[in-house]
Amino acid sequence: MEMALMDNLWVIVGTVLVFLMLGGFILLEAGSTRMKNAGHIAGKTIFTAGIGALVFWAVGYGLIYGSEGAFIGWGSFFYGDASFSGEGLAPAVDIMFQMVFALVALTIAFGGFAERAKLSAYVIFAVLFSALIYPVVAHWIWGGGWLAGHGKQDFAGSTVVHLTGAMAALAATIILKPRIGKFNKDGSSNDIAGHNQVYTALGVLLLWVGWFGFNGGSTFGVADAFFGFVSLNTMLGAAAGAVAAMSVAWAVNGKADVPSMLNGALAGLVAITAPAGFVEPWAAVVIGLVGGIIVVFSMKLFDKARIDDPIFALSVHGTVGVWGTLANGLFAVPAFSSEIDWGKPGLFYGGGLEQLGVQALGVFTSGLYAFVASFLILKVMDIVMGGLRVSEEEEIIGLDLSEHGGYGYPENIPNPNDQKGA
Amino acid sequence: MEMALMDNLWVIVGTVLVFLMLGGFILLEAGSTRMKNAGHIAGKTIFTAGIGALVFWAVGYGLIYGSEGAFIGWGSFFYGDASFSGEGLAPAVDIMFQMVFALVALTIAFGGFAERAKLSAYVIFAVLFSALIYPVVAHWIWGGGWLAGHGKQDFAGSTVVHLTGAMAALAATIILKPRIGKFNKDGSSNDIAGHNQVYTALGVLLLWVGWFGFNGGSTFGVADAFFGFVSLNTMLGAAAGAVAAMSVAWAVNGKADVPSMLNGALAGLVAITAPAGFVEPWAAVVIGLVGGIIVVFSMKLFDKARIDDPIFALSVHGTVGVWGTLANGLFAVPAFSSEIDWGKPGLFYGGGLEQLGVQALGVFTSGLYAFVASFLILKVMDIVMGGLRVSEEEEIIGLDLSEHGGYGYPENIPNPNDQKGA
Amino acid sequence: MEMALMDNLWVIVGTVLVFLMLGGFILLEAGSTRMKNAGHIAGKTIFTAGIGALVFWAVGYGLIYGSEGAFIGWGSFFYGDASFSGEGLAPAVDIMFQMVFALVALTIAFGGFAERAKLSAYVIFAVLFSALIYPVVAHWIWGGGWLAGHGKQDFAGSTVVHLTGAMAALAATIILKPRIGKFNKDGSSNDIAGHNQVYTALGVLLLWVGWFGFNGGSTFGVADAFFGFVSLNTMLGAAAGAVAAMSVAWAVNGKADVPSMLNGALAGLVAITAPAGFVEPWAAVVIGLVGGIIVVFSMKLFDKARIDDPIFALSVHGTVGVWGTLANGLFAVPAFSSEIDWGKPGLFYGGGLEQLGVQALGVFTSGLYAFVASFLILKVMDIVMGGLRVSEEEEIIGLDLSEHGGYGYPENIPNPNDQKGA
Repeated sequence: MEMALMDNLWVIVGTVLVFLMLGGFILLEAGSTRMKNAGHIAGKTIFTAGIGALVFWAVGYGLIYGSEGAFIGWGSFFYGDASFSGEGLAPAVDIMFQMVFALVALTIAFGGFAERAKLSAYVIFAVLFSALIYPVVAHWIWGGGWLAGHGKQDFAGSTVVHLTGAMAALAATIILKPRIGKFNKDGSSNDIAGHNQVYTALGVLLLWVGWFGFNGGSTFGVADAFFGFVSLNTMLGAAAGAVAAMSVAWAVNGKADVPSMLNGALAGLVAITAPAGFVEPWAAVVIGLVGGIIVVFSMKLFDKARIDDPIFALSVHGTVGVWGTLANGLFAVPAFSSEIDWGKPGLFYGGGLEQLGVQALGVFTSGLYAFVASFLILKVMDIVMGGLRVSEEEEIIGLDLSEHGGYGYPENIPNPNDQKGA
Repeated sequence: MEMALMDNLWVIVGTVLVFLMLGGFILLEAGSTRMKNAGHIAGKTIFTAGIGALVFWAVGYGLIYGSEGAFIGWGSFFYGDASFSGEGLAPAVDIMFQMVFALVALTIAFGGFAERAKLSAYVIFAVLFSALIYPVVAHWIWGGGWLAGHGKQDFAGSTVVHLTGAMAALAATIILKPRIGKFNKDGSSNDIAGHNQVYTALGVLLLWVGWFGFNGGSTFGVADAFFGFVSLNTMLGAAAGAVAAMSVAWAVNGKADVPSMLNGALAGLVAITAPAGFVEPWAAVVIGLVGGIIVVFSMKLFDKARIDDPIFALSVHGTVGVWGTLANGLFAVPAFSSEIDWGKPGLFYGGGLEQLGVQALGVFTSGLYAFVASFLILKVMDIVMGGLRVSEEEEIIGLDLSEHGGYGYPENIPNPNDQKGA
Repeated sequence: MEMALMDNLWVIVGTVLVFLMLGGFILLEAGSTRMKNAGHIAGKTIFTAGIGALVFWAVGYGLIYGSEGAFIGWGSFFYGDASFSGEGLAPAVDIMFQMVFALVALTIAFGGFAERAKLSAYVIFAVLFSALIYPVVAHWIWGGGWLAGHGKQDFAGSTVVHLTGAMAALAATIILKPRIGKFNKDGSSNDIAGHNQVYTALGVLLLWVGWFGFNGGSTFGVADAFFGFVSLNTMLGAAAGAVAAMSVAWAVNGKADVPSMLNGALAGLVAITAPAGFVEPWAAVVIGLVGGIIVVFSMKLFDKARIDDPIFALSVHGTVGVWGTLANGLFAVPAFSSEIDWGKPGLFYGGGLEQLGVQALGVFTSGLYAFVASFLILKVMDIVMGGLRVSEEEEIIGLDLSEHGGYGYPENIPNPNDQKGA
């Protein structure tokens, strides 16, 4: 009983930390984009979190953890009450922890919408992503679905949360097309610099802080103080990612640009998310280092492919989410404890290619589902709504004004309507 | 013993989360006001928290929880030592948790002072509010006073914290009169836009995060993992408030303006604060929805009434604080557990009008006391100090310069004194 | 077993709170300096944390807590695994908690580098400080070294963390020399105002929040709910420091300038860090008050001494770190509990001058080591690297551009290279 209460206590603390990550995303997204869209970008995080929470409570949780099916769960809708059996997690604690993961995935997905999607597109996609996309992948891997049956390892969501969000972002950015001014006719690209690197850096720090709940809380309890080990791996992965990306950017670009440095820390965090409870600390360092290196080149590749990725969601959460998931297939040790006894050891620990194959299968199918479902949903929305994107004029004056009627920084940006009236 | 230690652990975590809310208020208040006052508004939150903490330690706690009287407690001044009996909360944990609630109420009160009160008015009112106003209402409801005797329900302070703070803000804004430029001679009002919506949005997110300590910690322990249920209700109320306010603002104003969206989330949080441990999740959604709707119209009403409410404290914490308290009288269920066995069920659960009546009585008397006491105190201060408000010239150049000698954004705002000297 | 798990749970929560303090430093440092350096200052906090974490894991922890020697520990390198014996802290939890303290000390040290040091100087010093400077002082006092043998009291690190960081900052600022424009030829100084006081105030709030983990977590567990008492002392010290500095600045300067007010809160926190578990609440108030008074005058003294202290690290963490450590020698009570049974009572509790002497010895030797070692290391770096400081032209255009290739606020500051190209 007391032990179970301690488990619940730790998981609710983890929940709060994961929810704090939305604050990190507010800063990361607003800082990485332009002043004329800042109020919009920050503000939409709040109400899309509201939509996501309501939808996840109503149906999302039940589609993941309802009665087990290979493809989807069913039941336990409008989940959560005041009961507690004395064992395991109380229903309300359980859904709270799962809910905040869904909100993080949703927020990542919106990275692909940035600086040009209509407000109404956010509203509708928040509903559909939280009901139809995230729960499917989460069910496959965490809810007893077919990938769980194969022993797919994803400790805290490199695939379930980060890759799923990034695939939705990819579908969105393809359908929405690049921002005005991002790419030139000759195929070259322009850097549309974010307006505030202090926001970005603080955003990364808040994400890093929240990640101790994201990964550490995924122990679902305090047994063996295993959360400490998961936290240490998380710290080392993030640290290695930050150092690697800074070094690579410095070597390759001649300057250690701040966005690359910061994305390196995030890449380390995304990379260590799937393996956090399965690998040794030295492996966490390696996984983070590789994540930090990959992210810098991935940013360049998307740029070359003329895919506009304003907040680097595709590289940080997508490319590196894949790497993190595959890393289990290389570095997973024979189980540390019975709680984490899931799947097989990785290639470097005598497990051969089996777990690596399962991880690859998981990445491919999950990513494919998330991309295709998002693409279809957004295409239908595009047709029904007469376009997902604001007009060219609206994009140029900024979404703060076009979608919300006023700039987020009214003293820094003069309202053009006021000027017309003068 | 171990169970009691777990209770203390949870309550200290809740304390830290509530204290983090002051960071949310720094951003909310600074973001909702103008650049020329930003350093002042942010900085005064720190030292008024200092004053409030010292006064609450010296006398505030004792006036609430000292020997029971109907109107006020007495004793336990300078409370808190290193002792722990092995049961319940340690004295130091107990006062810490109560103290941060008082600091939140104080910060809400200062919403009515924004952009025109003298620094000295903040200093003196911080002392008097923390000693003479907040403790009285808190004693009535939480300290065994006369409203507690009637079974008044206020789980975490829709009345005690939010309404009390808002009534003090109302008294202040009436006495201080509206900001220069807020209202025109023909009775119409101007929108004095806040300078930074990223601050405001992040502020709301930090408040939302902290509210899990505010409501969740008000379980005073881990029994039955009830904090999880309270947290779920809190999440759903906030989510519903955000969605409702966005929708209403969009429908009524033609645009979903960012401040309304954000105030909707806060309204949901304020509304669910009194009922958080007394109602079912579906009711939490309804309570939050109504809160989000009310807040938009309340903002319009105060504007029409020519009452200047710079940070929307009157609507968010006042109007919605009333709603949240009354909501118990409608939705409170027969007690979930013995820990929350307080008062009667609400109207919709067969309790008739009795609890609703008690809630209304509590709102009326608490609100009246907080308003009248604040008004009298501020009137006396007004006379003794030769006015609570800075001069017209000082208000125009901004309080950063007039009250602190330098702008908070010196690179964005040129110092007029420097220009004179040039 | 359950008790030990609760200890680990509390310490990991404390760890997360301390890590959040880096977010406070991002804001404090960026807000206290100029726009042209803001992206650099914020961003470097992330990758230097990465370097510090890796180095501390590899060697730092082992040099503190490896096999005991008077001067340095040895062993336990690359510390931390998935084990848990069932008693005390799990190795991974233990190193995590110690690691974040090292990161805070490192961040304080970089206060002396602000606005003029090369990026490469940060990289290299982050390695050397984390390996050669911090671990030595930490070993002396916390790792069973020679000062521990004398009963030196430092509950959470007024000496180990704050003074050590500040001494490194002092060495750096002496070697780097003052920023261009700080001092005039006649010896007078100019105020180089920080660009954003909202950042600074929020930074202080986040530091204050994190300090409950810093001091409270230093109980290493939940026994007797002693963390509550330590938290109360922490709150009172900070509150008193904020009020004192505001009052003194108002009285002495004619205006309560925002930076002094904010530094007062930090001074209260630094002052109460060494005595937090050793003194009574009234003493915490006195210690904080004195800290808040001292810091205002210390800021003036360094200015008169023509030592440039951009982020006030020397005054807040250095001068006040000394005061906090000495305060134990005055106010320490006979032990509250067996957990904190360390050293002797202070002068005012019948302990005579003995503990005060030990504290003074600790301050002197620790400060001296940190200063001399930092000075020598930086001198060697200076010679090897051909200077630690960017060129005059680079300093004038700002480190965002010179060290990272783009401004942190590109929409507020026009890129001079773009203008050349136009």
